[in-house]
Amino acid sequence: MISTERLGAQLAHLGRITAPGRGVTRLAFTDSDWEGRAYVISLMRKAGLAVREDAFGNVVGRREGTRPELAPVLCGSHADTVPEGGRFDGACGTLAAIEIARSMEEEGWRNERPYEAVLFLCEESSRFGAGTLGSRAMCGELSLPDLLSLHDREGRALYDVLKARGLDPDHVAEAKYKGKPAAFFEMHIEQGRVLEHEGKKAGVVTGIAAPTRLRFRLHGHPDHSGAAPMHLRHDGLALAAEIILAAEREAKAHSDPPVVATVGTLRVRPNAMNVVPGEVTMGLDVRSISSAAKDEAVAHILAAAEAAGRRRGIPYDIEPICREEPAPIRRDVADLLMACCEEEGLSAMRLPSGAGHDAMHWAAVCPTGMLFLPCRDGASHCAEEHAELEDIAGAARALERAVRKVLRADFHFKEDGK
Amino acid sequence: MISTERLGAQLAHLGRITAPGRGVTRLAFTDSDWEGRAYVISLMRKAGLAVREDAFGNVVGRREGTRPELAPVLCGSHADTVPEGGRFDGACGTLAAIEIARSMEEEGWRNERPYEAVLFLCEESSRFGAGTLGSRAMCGELSLPDLLSLHDREGRALYDVLKARGLDPDHVAEAKYKGKPAAFFEMHIEQGRVLEHEGKKAGVVTGIAAPTRLRFRLHGHPDHSGAAPMHLRHDGLALAAEIILAAEREAKAHSDPPVVATVGTLRVRPNAMNVVPGEVTMGLDVRSISSAAKDEAVAHILAAAEAAGRRRGIPYDIEPICREEPAPIRRDVADLLMACCEEEGLSAMRLPSGAGHDAMHWAAVCPTGMLFLPCRDGASHCAEEHAELEDIAGAARALERAVRKVLRADFHFKEDGK
Repeated sequence: MISTERLGAQLAHLGRITAPGRGVTRLAFTDSDWEGRAYVISLMRKAGLAVREDAFGNVVGRREGTRPELAPVLCGSHADTVPEGGRFDGACGTLAAIEIARSMEEEGWRNERPYEAVLFLCEESSRFGAGTLGSRAMCGELSLPDLLSLHDREGRALYDVLKARGLDPDHVAEAKYKGKPAAFFEMHIEQGRVLEHEGKKAGVVTGIAAPTRLRFRLHGHPDHSGAAPMHLRHDGLALAAEIILAAEREAKAHSDPPVVATVGTLRVRPNAMNVVPGEVTMGLDVRSISSAAKDEAVAHILAAAEAAGRRRGIPYDIEPICREEPAPIRRDVADLLMACCEEEGLSAMRLPSGAGHDAMHWAAVCPTGMLFLPCRDGASHCAEEHAELEDIAGAARALERAVRKVLRADFHFKEDGK
Repeated sequence: MISTERLGAQLAHLGRITAPGRGVTRLAFTDSDWEGRAYVISLMRKAGLAVREDAFGNVVGRREGTRPELAPVLCGSHADTVPEGGRFDGACGTLAAIEIARSMEEEGWRNERPYEAVLFLCEESSRFGAGTLGSRAMCGELSLPDLLSLHDREGRALYDVLKARGLDPDHVAEAKYKGKPAAFFEMHIEQGRVLEHEGKKAGVVTGIAAPTRLRFRLHGHPDHSGAAPMHLRHDGLALAAEIILAAEREAKAHSDPPVVATVGTLRVRPNAMNVVPGEVTMGLDVRSISSAAKDEAVAHILAAAEAAGRRRGIPYDIEPICREEPAPIRRDVADLLMACCEEEGLSAMRLPSGAGHDAMHWAAVCPTGMLFLPCRDGASHCAEEHAELEDIAGAARALERAVRKVLRADFHFKEDGK
């Protein structure tokens, strides 16, 4: 039986482990993160799990199955945070995964397949500029050269940071998970306002979007804001405004599957009241769970930028920052989670995940499911981040149902034969 | 006879007087400005002018007339610069005013009215956040409380800065010009690209625009750029983009008299690739030589902002920064300058001044004329600022013609009787 009270106490305890400042700060591999990791390990032990760690520092707590030779069911999330982040992002899913094991232990529920609760290290990109590194390592997508090339803002290589924590970066390849799990599940706060807006208690993820990111450098011409007549201007910010609105328009034009497009960063030079903007730099982030829809939206935005730039006589450069592939979520896994929410009496809906998560790397490895729970006002990555304890426990119970189903030796996903 | 060679040598000499850095830096009342002022004074003396200074530090070089009791003709500009500014802004007009006196002196040309070449102090707003202070003082628009309240970035009050230069801020009221000049003229680089674009060698100013400035604070809602669906966003930067384009559109809708509108400053928070912009701050500068046209454009921009803000559900604040009155230029003075350009064989056109100048304060005091000369690519307030020496000398000769006409005791402007 999932204990709401216990989950609440554990969330509160983990939330107090933080570097100084607002909210919660447990940047990957820092002292506060390491303290949080130790607490998570202690909870795994209390749940009766056999704890192991890999070369990257990921922690796996295993509850042996009555048929240890079967593929295990994995469930987990992360416990690191952004600077001055919240108490729920990552923590909910990590603690729920352990609570599911504890519930089995307390009930004496016998799992045929092994069950593994996983703590992924370094999910947030705040420290090294790249995220979900622990799950990448476990999915064989992180190499020694990556560890040497990733640096934090103080210039410390991830390789050295791992060494300093007594980990084994030279053998990061060995962190790759052996075999193929029967399934991977992750519970997480939504980080958007869809569930709240739709009045739902749970969201079954239909796919995990991945960003295409571009940096625009618009080479407008700085002019005196009084002396330059409108028809002779090449205003970099006016061109930026057209591109911002084109991005919004093109994203809205794609609703099934949805595309989101955001100009989140913008800098104007010289940024003076009496000078027509010259150089404008801005970053565009476009996401969808469909590569095709995303590529089409990006192409339309670029075409709009091209037309506006030509009309205004403003040259510009576009620097591609990344183009990641969305992770599709299998329909049968989503169906299972929807069914479990219904059994649990949770109102649920299907929705895409716009944010990246550890689960996206597992989607290519094994049947993978993701369950969202509502968070207040969509606030995340900030001290205001909040989820109701009842909602967390409710989602954990729905997830427990799914986990227990798949833990049976005779469970098969519908599409497994395909 | 205006000497092109002498003007060129003087411009070069003055241009070498600068604080370290790119271009020319003679911030008001700093050592480099004071050295430039001393050089200008020396040139006034060489031109046979009787030099006096006022309580604010403005310098007047007087060539007595054969009828000293008549109202004098004034001609001048400034010699301070913005940080890393150019060699021509202010300097051209200041040196031309002195060269006109030197030409009379060398030719033995007898002026009936007295002639006064003026160097205005602190025209640029770079140091104290307010500009044309010297001409304000001479036009009775600068008071002791102003001197106490204006501070530079290091927190030094203008009052103390004047004291340190041995000036007399306590009696700034006495800097007000005694009597009413027969006319005031200022020659200046255009600082736009209109003359260059139209292939003209001179521009006769039809009015001096003044800015209305507003600061917008758009209270958008920061959201995860992946997790927030488009229809639930309150993107502060998207609203900003609508206002930027509305400002451009409304300015373009007014062409006679023209209005210019510029969003020159913009700051986004939190300015992260993966966060939908929340708070956006931006500054709007609207100018026209017509108060009515300017007010109408501002009203239309505010209406567009209101509609867009309401549609997007984004609250915002607007902080008025200033609303200055444009200075009209009398038709008869502009006609005189046009005629003198024609006599000199200079192709000329009428155009508004979008930038503020010392002349704008004189327009309320006496018949005032302003003559622009082309500058390359509209570049000004930067090291790239450039005007052709031939153009400077040509404009100075046209101005000399106007000055000499008005210096005659029997000259009357057409509208004087009105």
